[in-house]
Amino acid sequence: MRSPSDVGAIARAAGDVLGRLRAKSPRVHCITNSVAQNFTANVLLALGAQPSMTISAEEIGHFAGSADALLVNLGTFDRERAAAIEIAVAAAQRAKRPWVLDPVLIDRSPPRAELARALIGKRPNVVRLNSAEFSALDGHDVAPFAAQTGTVVALSGATDVIADGLRCAAVLNGDPLMARVTAMGCAASAIVAGCLALEDDAFIAACAGLLILGVAGEIAGGQAKGPGSFAAAILDALYGLDQATLIERARVS
Amino acid sequence: MRSPSDVGAIARAAGDVLGRLRAKSPRVHCITNSVAQNFTANVLLALGAQPSMTISAEEIGHFAGSADALLVNLGTFDRERAAAIEIAVAAAQRAKRPWVLDPVLIDRSPPRAELARALIGKRPNVVRLNSAEFSALDGHDVAPFAAQTGTVVALSGATDVIADGLRCAAVLNGDPLMARVTAMGCAASAIVAGCLALEDDAFIAACAGLLILGVAGEIAGGQAKGPGSFAAAILDALYGLDQATLIERARVS
Amino acid sequence: MRSPSDVGAIARAAGDVLGRLRAKSPRVHCITNSVAQNFTANVLLALGAQPSMTISAEEIGHFAGSADALLVNLGTFDRERAAAIEIAVAAAQRAKRPWVLDPVLIDRSPPRAELARALIGKRPNVVRLNSAEFSALDGHDVAPFAAQTGTVVALSGATDVIADGLRCAAVLNGDPLMARVTAMGCAASAIVAGCLALEDDAFIAACAGLLILGVAGEIAGGQAKGPGSFAAAILDALYGLDQATLIERARVS
Repeated sequence: MRSPSDVGAIARAAGDVLGRLRAKSPRVHCITNSVAQNFTANVLLALGAQPSMTISAEEIGHFAGSADALLVNLGTFDRERAAAIEIAVAAAQRAKRPWVLDPVLIDRSPPRAELARALIGKRPNVVRLNSAEFSALDGHDVAPFAAQTGTVVALSGATDVIADGLRCAAVLNGDPLMARVTAMGCAASAIVAGCLALEDDAFIAACAGLLILGVAGEIAGGQAKGPGSFAAAILDALYGLDQATLIERARVS
Repeated sequence: MRSPSDVGAIARAAGDVLGRLRAKSPRVHCITNSVAQNFTANVLLALGAQPSMTISAEEIGHFAGSADALLVNLGTFDRERAAAIEIAVAAAQRAKRPWVLDPVLIDRSPPRAELARALIGKRPNVVRLNSAEFSALDGHDVAPFAAQTGTVVALSGATDVIADGLRCAAVLNGDPLMARVTAMGCAASAIVAGCLALEDDAFIAACAGLLILGVAGEIAGGQAKGPGSFAAAILDALYGLDQATLIERARVS
Repeated sequence: MRSPSDVGAIARAAGDVLGRLRAKSPRVHCITNSVAQNFTANVLLALGAQPSMTISAEEIGHFAGSADALLVNLGTFDRERAAAIEIAVAAAQRAKRPWVLDPVLIDRSPPRAELARALIGKRPNVVRLNSAEFSALDGHDVAPFAAQTGTVVALSGATDVIADGLRCAAVLNGDPLMARVTAMGCAASAIVAGCLALEDDAFIAACAGLLILGVAGEIAGGQAKGPGSFAAAILDALYGLDQATLIERARVS
């Protein structure tokens, strides 16, 4: 349980990160799955960030090393992406760029879970995942896992939980239709990467990313008639979201 | 020509399948083309089903064997998918899971048509295709083709025709804008796969799948201003469709 | 600076191309990046053209040679596409089909820029790109570059510039939200390819393609609340656009 002042501080910090996203338009290089690429690019563009998406081994070192942050999403698991991930993470680390790991569906695929564990060993700044995926990492409680791995854990669900080993917060914003649009979790990870590009405190960046998407989801949920109109409305809401609205609507505990 | 009681029985059976889709949330593993992946996933999610999409040879046996149904769509034709299809079909058959073949554009590609013929020999529960694709399989009349191959044929068009060698039905629902949104046929096949997950009678599952999409298309057509708003509206309609509306609006002959 | 009569002639010619697009439904084979495939297909379908998208080396010669125009977009840069491009361009040239080059992000990737330069040497009918990409081709002024390479240059930006070495036009239509939806430039190139399928004068085809998208963008911008609703609205506008509206709203200088 967090004190009201802590809660307000997180919401205000998230508002501040959103303002920097709008002002600085960071480039986020996304190694992501083929289902999520289009929606992820549109989510970043709606927020004012710049996506790039190549996975070519010939190019990715340059793209990832010159981006402001890197997203590594395991939702398409092929040799090309496995090679790309290795090059991109090395390039990001050489250039001291932050990166986010999204270990999609590792609970259904032992070879993917093995890759995820190896990548956790390379200390991504944030790992964003759901509870089934967290279990596949032998995760039980987020705080000790975060402390042990040196990685901020952002666990998505009806309530999102973010922990870095010292601090822990819950984000209550969101809408049930978020689970009815594919790639919403992938998009959350991309937003967190965008926030990390501008905010050195990875715990705050992860809270900001999930708050931004959750509040936009609530706004969209108030307008949508179903998941089709919701997918458009959440992009509109991300585009229109201002700091004051984010801070006012943020529900953190 | 079907008797009114048969027609009513098909519509009621489709309503029943829709109810089970909502209640049981089957997982449909989709090997599908890169253009269709996102829309296909969203169509399944709108109906309450769970999509998975990997085509990695390392993983797909497990994904396909543990899914409730499998979709094999030939719209992207590469070595990776050809290998994935072989593994996935074998895994589905070992696990006694139903599968749907969608032989996209085989009328334009002899090597694709050859693969489709080989797959027909493995007896998919349903093959869903359009009339040009059917001709490329040397198909003339759906009923004898279905009888000879042991596969339910679901032929999409302005009127859809479904046959299993003994029974034959036509679905009249739909909207012209369905032809102006890419991957609509691919999505139809995915819905049929979702219905097969819950309905052993493949003829009824195919009728149900095409009725669900056709009725949702009609509802969306009443609201849309063009193909962009139509694509969102049909997802909303699939999400909101209830059994009573499906049965009431179904036009089967 | 163009005379009013020239300007009116370009707008009327664009209207004429739009009419032929609706009437003749050309097939455009698109080698394009994985992020853009779905939106590109939907843009072409909204206009009444037929997209095909395979990149399989086994098939693409037949697809590209039998299509009415070819799009070569470098946004996904992998071995499979590099091989496909070589086969497809050769097939299009043998069949005397027009083709468009879209050298996406070559300003960020030297190997991609090298491929783009080699492809320019094969004389695409149109190269459509932005100013950063143009600089990566050592392009300074569009007119001499077009004259030297024998390729119409269509340079997208807040104002689009089209030149063929003799003629030069600027298209002023558009909306700022076009930069907030991924693959909008890729879609512009696909529309230009569709226009080239029906119009031998590549300068007019390029002007027509950018006018069609720019006017549709303005119409969509008047209705949208953000990039999500804009992406749907521009498809609706492309679908509904008639020749009279295009000519009336065209702003060429």
